[in-house]
Amino acid sequence: MTIIMHDLAGADPAVRFSPYCWRIRFALAHKGLPVETIPWRFTDKAAIAFSGQERVPVIRDGGTVVSDSWAIAAYLETEYRAPALFGGALALAHARFVNAWADSVLLGGIARLILSDIHDMIDPGDRAYFRQSREARFGTTLEDTQAGRETRVAAFRETLAPLRLVLRAQPWFGGAAPSYADAIIAGTLMWPRCSSRFAVLADDDVIAAWFERMLDLYGGLGRSAVRA
Amino acid sequence: MTIIMHDLAGADPAVRFSPYCWRIRFALAHKGLPVETIPWRFTDKAAIAFSGQERVPVIRDGGTVVSDSWAIAAYLETEYRAPALFGGALALAHARFVNAWADSVLLGGIARLILSDIHDMIDPGDRAYFRQSREARFGTTLEDTQAGRETRVAAFRETLAPLRLVLRAQPWFGGAAPSYADAIIAGTLMWPRCSSRFAVLADDDVIAAWFERMLDLYGGLGRSAVRA
Repeated sequence: MTIIMHDLAGADPAVRFSPYCWRIRFALAHKGLPVETIPWRFTDKAAIAFSGQERVPVIRDGGTVVSDSWAIAAYLETEYRAPALFGGALALAHARFVNAWADSVLLGGIARLILSDIHDMIDPGDRAYFRQSREARFGTTLEDTQAGRETRVAAFRETLAPLRLVLRAQPWFGGAAPSYADAIIAGTLMWPRCSSRFAVLADDDVIAAWFERMLDLYGGLGRSAVRA
Repeated sequence: MTIIMHDLAGADPAVRFSPYCWRIRFALAHKGLPVETIPWRFTDKAAIAFSGQERVPVIRDGGTVVSDSWAIAAYLETEYRAPALFGGALALAHARFVNAWADSVLLGGIARLILSDIHDMIDPGDRAYFRQSREARFGTTLEDTQAGRETRVAAFRETLAPLRLVLRAQPWFGGAAPSYADAIIAGTLMWPRCSSRFAVLADDDVIAAWFERMLDLYGGLGRSAVRA
């Protein structure tokens, strides 16, 4: 049975840009599981009320509903064993650090480069909610969060040093082949790719080379994604 | 056969403070492997020339010599299967990100809090080498690297956010039990613990609570370590 996933969409419903939803799109593709996505907007809480919470991704797999990207990835690994996203309890535990780093350092750093761009590409009905919630979180205006980004991007790129150290030692964050660790980082990078035209990575970065390989995986799932 | 390990020592040979050597001390204890450590100083390159390189840790296990903490951990996992440090190729691949983060963000951050303290506790014969190499690496004097640390430590502690996110979800970086990921982080934190009296962690930090538990493991290996 095809898995159904509520997926954050921009003003153009074809533009899907949530970093958490993209982690799961990659995870589903990794498992070879077909998915039907339903475009969803920030303010459309009613549409996912059946999940008992207010955020996407939410998946419905037959009679099972799972929300939260980490919980969904763990669910997929339990229900659909191969190919492995984690491959065991220790690999899952270690991937939590990758997820935690992506949720704090990577997401926070990217947010300060593209938040105003996101505001401009989301549905007009979402904009007041987005501005209010993000300005409260970041303590400044959306416009100010990304001001000076051409200069500040250098400092952001320095925070990615741990990714580079790994990619100099192995081709994927999962080692010889991609794993959910790759889905976490690539999913997070799909966020700026699909919502903004600002280049968060330098072209000659080893991370950019790895991301290009990720874009080509799964029949070019990432590369063919519609950009705002 | 007891494993022999060259281990960085301070002016007091009982003080062992290398973050890389401590990772392996924890890893050996995790495997239940006895070790005989040989105190080593930065400038004693001749003593480890047999390893074909100039840094510790170096272990000698019967006829096998292995250097570099990551390579040693991988060697121990292959030679001595249980209890697992990694528990499979994917867990090892994911732990590389923990190692990379510890080597860049964590080590770099701690260095800027304690480098001058380290200079003062190492062997007088090591001090000129240490000052020259570290001042070249950090582009300033040892004294300046740790100047203003009482104020700057707050920003350092913020960089540890990913560790906190993990420890709020699971008791150890290895999940339900410690793994090499725990050895990496705890080993790195043994560096300031043994070489300085400056508190890099706040007492009420969830990371401090986890580190206290690590200090008690393996018969109190970490807690009983001699501090400078």
